[in-house]
Amino acid sequence: MNNGKFIVVEGLEGAGKTTAIQNVIQTLKAHGISNVETTREPGGTPLAEQMRALVKEGHPDEPLTDMAELLLLYAARIQLVDNVIKPALSRGAFVVGDRHDMSSQAYQGGGRGFDKALMANLRDTVLGDFRPDFTLYMDLDPAIGLSRAKARGELDRIEKMQLDFFHRTRERYLELANADKSIVIIDASQTIEQVSADIKAALEKWLNHAG
Amino acid sequence: MNNGKFIVVEGLEGAGKTTAIQNVIQTLKAHGISNVETTREPGGTPLAEQMRALVKEGHPDEPLTDMAELLLLYAARIQLVDNVIKPALSRGAFVVGDRHDMSSQAYQGGGRGFDKALMANLRDTVLGDFRPDFTLYMDLDPAIGLSRAKARGELDRIEKMQLDFFHRTRERYLELANADKSIVIIDASQTIEQVSADIKAALEKWLNHAG
Repeated sequence: MNNGKFIVVEGLEGAGKTTAIQNVIQTLKAHGISNVETTREPGGTPLAEQMRALVKEGHPDEPLTDMAELLLLYAARIQLVDNVIKPALSRGAFVVGDRHDMSSQAYQGGGRGFDKALMANLRDTVLGDFRPDFTLYMDLDPAIGLSRAKARGELDRIEKMQLDFFHRTRERYLELANADKSIVIIDASQTIEQVSADIKAALEKWLNHAG
Repeated sequence: MNNGKFIVVEGLEGAGKTTAIQNVIQTLKAHGISNVETTREPGGTPLAEQMRALVKEGHPDEPLTDMAELLLLYAARIQLVDNVIKPALSRGAFVVGDRHDMSSQAYQGGGRGFDKALMANLRDTVLGDFRPDFTLYMDLDPAIGLSRAKARGELDRIEKMQLDFFHRTRERYLELANADKSIVIIDASQTIEQVSADIKAALEKWLNHAG
């Protein structure tokens, strides 16, 4: 049985994840890998998209508690992992994910302030030892990212958080990336051409070693 | 500041929880307690009701994983606890709950087979040390309860489980009830008059000691 790989693109709003994912897919194709599927989190399945809507939209008459947000994100994640990602990997596909667990560690752990032990415990309880094979973290000053996201249109419940929240989130992203060799930091403040070149180089280096 | 009490009615489908809750409210009123609020789980807030719908209805094109079900139930529970139950208790109300955490311990722990350490860990992570003050567990043979529930109409996703599931659920209910002095077992196979008398007696005994 052939086994695929799970590649994740992470980063704050406006850091260029969508373009980065296109770069990843092009690089995989150039490497002869055409069996590629994409996912996004939270969401990516019918039920997970309904959970995503609860997180993104909340409710006009009731605050969504931080804990319920966290649990909904993990509920959506396990739906996607069990019903989409694992089956795709077992068919030998390369799965390219727009966000995965690192987002929860950074936004809910760093941004919302849930403690690290709780976050690690919940991740292990829900996901077991399932982890991405390779992650590109698009690093950018939150002020720049948010101004890009704002220019794209309406902000959702999370994008409306104060800048402090995103600074704490970025700090946790960097801390996690620096502690894990399977995560590569891409400087997303560069020109789009340089960002693409860096993504391509990092991914090819990994493909040549992982292959 | 006056502090209320949280009373929960638990039991399998068809065990007579709705009537039991009426008995509880009448007994409280006879005891001079008129500030009574009722809740139901999963649900009881706008967001928790949306989570309940995901659990009860699932999706025609996608299985709801046992883990996502468990996380949704806890997401709904913390919404209800933080936004409804705790505020009511701090106003001095008696809150009468149609189900609470014991349902998850019994259905997901006993029925679905999640291990006890995981269940206790998740409960403590989400709820901290919040617990009901008093619980009435309506005990009934699942075969009888299910035939009553069927007679009431369409069965939902959980009510459609096999009888074995409900036997495991009942077994866990009884195990928890026998280990906790704040939980009283009511024999729900008796006549409706005897059940009501037992509920009234158990509640009055507790009120006279807790008061």
